[in-house]
Amino acid sequence: MGGHGHPYSPAELELPGFVPQQLSQAEIVAACLGASLLVILAVWLISGRCGSRLLSTTGRLLMCWWAFTGLTHIVLEGPFPFTPDFFRKENPSYFDDLFKEYSKGDSRYVSRDTAILALEVITIGLKGPASLLAIYAIASRKSYSHILQFAVSLVQLYGCLFYFITAYLAGFNFWASPFYFWAYFIGANSSWVLIPTLIAVRSWNKISTTFQAEKVKT
Amino acid sequence: MGGHGHPYSPAELELPGFVPQQLSQAEIVAACLGASLLVILAVWLISGRCGSRLLSTTGRLLMCWWAFTGLTHIVLEGPFPFTPDFFRKENPSYFDDLFKEYSKGDSRYVSRDTAILALEVITIGLKGPASLLAIYAIASRKSYSHILQFAVSLVQLYGCLFYFITAYLAGFNFWASPFYFWAYFIGANSSWVLIPTLIAVRSWNKISTTFQAEKVKT
Repeated sequence: MGGHGHPYSPAELELPGFVPQQLSQAEIVAACLGASLLVILAVWLISGRCGSRLLSTTGRLLMCWWAFTGLTHIVLEGPFPFTPDFFRKENPSYFDDLFKEYSKGDSRYVSRDTAILALEVITIGLKGPASLLAIYAIASRKSYSHILQFAVSLVQLYGCLFYFITAYLAGFNFWASPFYFWAYFIGANSSWVLIPTLIAVRSWNKISTTFQAEKVKT
Repeated sequence: MGGHGHPYSPAELELPGFVPQQLSQAEIVAACLGASLLVILAVWLISGRCGSRLLSTTGRLLMCWWAFTGLTHIVLEGPFPFTPDFFRKENPSYFDDLFKEYSKGDSRYVSRDTAILALEVITIGLKGPASLLAIYAIASRKSYSHILQFAVSLVQLYGCLFYFITAYLAGFNFWASPFYFWAYFIGANSSWVLIPTLIAVRSWNKISTTFQAEKVKT
């Protein structure tokens, strides 16, 4: 805990009434990972039972991803805009402690930076529901399945780019230690760079190929 | 001019060494509109001469838009990240005065807000070149034409949404008067909400219809 009564960087950040975390890092991370794995397993099993004759392995894996990312956006990130005082709540919920823990990797969460708040509002309100719609689109083989997946992935990539660039421009000193920089700021966000890139490239290629085929036929 | 030696809102904004605008509002706006109309006219005429048998009227109008938006992003917005001191330059260029004028509608430009700077960096570096690529894609009837136009339009819409949400969250008091709010903050940005929406919907529909047609055939 720094001289200002909190573990965040920069140390001079003022957080009057800060209440230390009740849950340990291991408890927070284990609950998060456990719930995510349960969601992924459930979608994998359900998609295998209900649609094994229709859905490819890639389709089922994509459904797992969209369920994971959609529920992360809505359930885990969802309470953030509505709890501006999460760091000083006397009886913190799991989510309050989750935001306190993540803020060790990016204190702009606990300081409620405008850019972060705007990013989260868009993520929760648009990317979350659109991710869940993608599960339905894949399962029902909707004609908009690829363009929807492309759209959400592109917006996720733009969000990450914006997230990293604003951090760089604002001083690049928001992590409590190199461990938190690599584990949270880089590590926890890397899936939202890697997987949306793969999906966006795949959908782009599928769409281009389909238009190419149409052109050859006509 | 306010008590702090500049015409911007909020009045307490500190801009040490501020040099007042040399060009009038009429000169700045006329040059901007004139150059834009010239670009649009040139692309309209060239696309009519070279590709009239291949290109539809919609295709030609789209090329005009992509040339206008691409050059706006690169030429007009381009100098912004590289001139942090534009408001105190003794011999301001046209662009310095343009940024000073626009800052009357959104002083986050002159105060160099992190979110605005990050938005501009992405706009200039990615949306600008991608807009110009869209002209080539339409002219050459590339199979990626629709997905590229969809991608740039979506990213423009996301950028606008982010622009308005951050302004709201940060206090919504960045315009010198209601005139500048409506003319610059809302008016000048409205084309980048309206036209990208139309293009994104059109491309989404084209892509979905093509996949629908493929599905019917198979």
